Amino acid sequence: MNLKTEIRPGTYFDSVVLMHLQRSLAALPGVDDAGVVMATPANLELLAEFDLLTDEGKAARPDDMLIVVRAKSEKTAVDALAQVDELLKKRRSSVASEFRPRSLEAAAKQLPEAAFVLISVPGRYAASVADQALDLGRHVFLYSDNVALEDEVKLKHKAGDKGLLVMGPDCGTAIVNGVGLGFANRVRRGDIGLVAAAGTGLQAVTAGIHNLGGGVSQAFGTGGRDLKTDVGGLTALLALDLLARDPETRVIVLVSKPPAAAVAARLLGAARACGKPVVIEFIGYPSPGRQIGNLHFAASLHEAAELAVALSGQPPIQEKEQTPLKGHLRGLFSGGTLAYETLLGLQGVLGPLYSNTPLSADQKLEDVFNSQGHTIIDLGEDDFTQGRLHPMMDNDLRLRRLKQELEDPETALILLDVVLGEGAHPDPASELAPAVAAGRNGRKDVEFAAIVVGTNEDPQGLDNQIEQLQSAGATVFRTTAEAVNHVSRRLAAAPAGIAAPVDIVPFQHPLAAINVGLESFYDNLKTQGAAAVQVDWRPPAGGDEKLMGILARMKSAARG
Amino acid sequence: MNLKTEIRPGTYFDSVVLMHLQRSLAALPGVDDAGVVMATPANLELLAEFDLLTDEGKAARPDDMLIVVRAKSEKTAVDALAQVDELLKKRRSSVASEFRPRSLEAAAKQLPEAAFVLISVPGRYAASVADQALDLGRHVFLYSDNVALEDEVKLKHKAGDKGLLVMGPDCGTAIVNGVGLGFANRVRRGDIGLVAAAGTGLQAVTAGIHNLGGGVSQAFGTGGRDLKTDVGGLTALLALDLLARDPETRVIVLVSKPPAAAVAARLLGAARACGKPVVIEFIGYPSPGRQIGNLHFAASLHEAAELAVALSGQPPIQEKEQTPLKGHLRGLFSGGTLAYETLLGLQGVLGPLYSNTPLSADQKLEDVFNSQGHTIIDLGEDDFTQGRLHPMMDNDLRLRRLKQELEDPETALILLDVVLGEGAHPDPASELAPAVAAGRNGRKDVEFAAIVVGTNEDPQGLDNQIEQLQSAGATVFRTTAEAVNHVSRRLAAAPAGIAAPVDIVPFQHPLAAINVGLESFYDNLKTQGAAAVQVDWRPPAGGDEKLMGILARMKSAARG
Repeated sequence: MNLKTEIRPGTYFDSVVLMHLQRSLAALPGVDDAGVVMATPANLELLAEFDLLTDEGKAARPDDMLIVVRAKSEKTAVDALAQVDELLKKRRSSVASEFRPRSLEAAAKQLPEAAFVLISVPGRYAASVADQALDLGRHVFLYSDNVALEDEVKLKHKAGDKGLLVMGPDCGTAIVNGVGLGFANRVRRGDIGLVAAAGTGLQAVTAGIHNLGGGVSQAFGTGGRDLKTDVGGLTALLALDLLARDPETRVIVLVSKPPAAAVAARLLGAARACGKPVVIEFIGYPSPGRQIGNLHFAASLHEAAELAVALSGQPPIQEKEQTPLKGHLRGLFSGGTLAYETLLGLQGVLGPLYSNTPLSADQKLEDVFNSQGHTIIDLGEDDFTQGRLHPMMDNDLRLRRLKQELEDPETALILLDVVLGEGAHPDPASELAPAVAAGRNGRKDVEFAAIVVGTNEDPQGLDNQIEQLQSAGATVFRTTAEAVNHVSRRLAAAPAGIAAPVDIVPFQHPLAAINVGLESFYDNLKTQGAAAVQVDWRPPAGGDEKLMGILARMKSAARG
Repeated sequence: MNLKTEIRPGTYFDSVVLMHLQRSLAALPGVDDAGVVMATPANLELLAEFDLLTDEGKAARPDDMLIVVRAKSEKTAVDALAQVDELLKKRRSSVASEFRPRSLEAAAKQLPEAAFVLISVPGRYAASVADQALDLGRHVFLYSDNVALEDEVKLKHKAGDKGLLVMGPDCGTAIVNGVGLGFANRVRRGDIGLVAAAGTGLQAVTAGIHNLGGGVSQAFGTGGRDLKTDVGGLTALLALDLLARDPETRVIVLVSKPPAAAVAARLLGAARACGKPVVIEFIGYPSPGRQIGNLHFAASLHEAAELAVALSGQPPIQEKEQTPLKGHLRGLFSGGTLAYETLLGLQGVLGPLYSNTPLSADQKLEDVFNSQGHTIIDLGEDDFTQGRLHPMMDNDLRLRRLKQELEDPETALILLDVVLGEGAHPDPASELAPAVAAGRNGRKDVEFAAIVVGTNEDPQGLDNQIEQLQSAGATVFRTTAEAVNHVSRRLAAAPAGIAAPVDIVPFQHPLAAINVGLESFYDNLKTQGAAAVQVDWRPPAGGDEKLMGILARMKSAARG
């Protein structure tokens, strides 16, 4: 193999330039293959896969540009490498030579109305550029990946305090004021607003909305880590709040891979309280059902688009206004699966929940004999049924527990299931209804609800059972889904407060933006008619990490 | 407190008797509360909760009957305990004194057509009774809980070898030949067959089907542990196979809490291949979409009923017959979320799957540069994009990988995504389509499919991109859901073979059954018009564990 390697230490080129150089080299006569990369460990591994890694190449450092050519003869390879400078020059001269500011500050002076800064420089430089953008009071679209998690958290807290959005890092897509940032399908404007952690997820849904005849008001990316525990959904919550206030947005769509449980609960709580229909597609998230109040759960990206378009054509559903209860749910179940489905439905919208049959470790009830916060007890669980009749036959344990819950001032809503049929208690309501009536008598502030599972042929008499429970003052439902809906309305979790809401005005004007990094993103902005400035960005200290460190310390010393 | 305790060592009563005795004692004048339990640790804890546990009670053993009375005065409590024998006698004389066989063998002789044995004796005796029933060639409905896992596995393997069903342990519900076993709602007969791990889950769905106007052919419970890794879905697979062959069953419903991943895959694979529409409600299982071929995924128990009733009224969908491909899927994605959704959709129906962005640890690709089995690669993942353009802009990596997959004889189907829009490659199909065409030329046995995400306003020209890909020989889809459907049809997993299929004949005759345990289950069988025999069961050796051990050893020595 005639493999020749050249290393240019500490030389930065953006990845479009690298790609073009690689293609030009590979296209030279007699050349079989070529690789042009920044010599990160991942890229060295890739070169090795393509048989393009030499011992010389292995010694290159992440800041070095590494050029490798494989050719029919050694001479051809050497000749190809000799053309690198010329090829680079050719490319550079083809790029328009309009005036370009060297710094973000200068760009901001040149286009003061630019409320957004797009950043696609290499990950290790990106946080510092984003930080400058926030200092200048601009929203950030951070395309760069390989940004440290702690930097993301710092940036987002800073942005949150200023009412600014940081979309990203690793945010591939957004549509702001009708203009696509990064990768974005061209879609008509409309009344559907989106918040998405995922790039192609957002693209699939926005494209789907357009293809189904709907349109998009705003589509915000958050970056994939936003909904993980460490970041806590900071950008998603700000963006959701913005869409809730945006008069152009009628329906909201949330798209993400499954968020951390606590983050999902925070987001769903905010969505539940936002007053607009919200379509949720947490791809692969355990489905809590099809609908809880204004929340609509989709089963695929495409269905999210379908639901959003359908909802945007419907008058908004007015939920009955009722003063929500203060206090906690106590669910006393005889049916394990009914308890499970209720837990699953409520865990997103009513936190924190506890149970003797928890869905996750943090839901585990410390003491199964004493409720804490919102609690769902399955009294049919093995522990309660050894040598004892099942609670569907014998109400003794349930009646005792009900009495106990009524003695707890925290109890606000008691939910029971009543399962009829062969084998079950011949008249469960005859024992449960009097307990409900007594409970309501003693505790005017406590409400009762029951899920009755049965048919009109069941020996207990379905209508009769329902009638007894209703007369005693319980609200009766026939499915867990309905009961979950009711509970989430009566005991809504308080949505997370937004410290500094995002000002809506910049989202109501034509988009103007500053681009730092990939030139093609700047070109796309111009193509779409947006005002834009490209910063002629170079890595600080020419990419020399040591020198960068010294400069950073000097800067912070000067500030201190 | 005037608390009096009585312990009756090694005395067995069934839990209906215990409940009635407790109620009778509590109803005596001057008595405040009473507890009558078998003294298991769980029951002692419960008594303590109700302030009914004395130091004397704490010393009782699990085989002891423990009676506690709390009364206004010590004398009242003592008097109450003195009435225990009389109260027990009163109860016993109220039970009909018809002839009852003392053993299962005798019962089987008395009612030879009884193909089913219902068992609800305490857990520690239940496995041995079930084992006898299998020896007698009968199907088992095992209501008892607290049966050891290893006993369940042994029983189910034995049953599987004989083509017998073991429903349970901890199986609360079934409807066999129109008769409810254990707890069961009364529902009309019809063409919907069910298999469910969960008791009230099955009740909620069967009741829902009835309430929506549908009907049930058979409804089998499996017990909650059946779909866990250790048991591997042995009963569920047998029951599914039976329903697939049952001419009375037109639509099948599977209900369970989320099964172990491998068990879910086995079940879904069998369901996918069974030729009938199957509604899946794995409550809280990450949704792979709404529909894959004949599989319909529900979002709640009630929706499972709705789907089943809707499907039972529709003519069965005939899937296009095509010889499935032999070999593996290779998905080469540029969009992370599209890869994720595809993985999620396929993981149940196409195993095992591997990826560089796995959904679970066992899907982790050993070497991201080499596919194994069915593989889905996200080339937009951080590792591939450091200092390098995203694969949505630069097809280089993808084209190299495609070539590599074509060199692998295992490759049968190559799936690509093509994401259009602002920022993406100006004409991706111009590079991908020739690679597809060349691939099809070199490997006649390999098929290509592509998911194209885009709108008619995208700069690349949607129709033009699709046209290029189709001309090259790729099947083009617009959503991952459609692509998942296609892949699952072309590369269907072979369903698990059934060693000894269950004979359908006993399920086509009026139900006859033997009941061992709770008398109320026997009463229910008679009420429903089924032929039934109640075994007058007593714990072996009067419940003396030591003696039982000696007897068991003698028995097995005699056999050996």
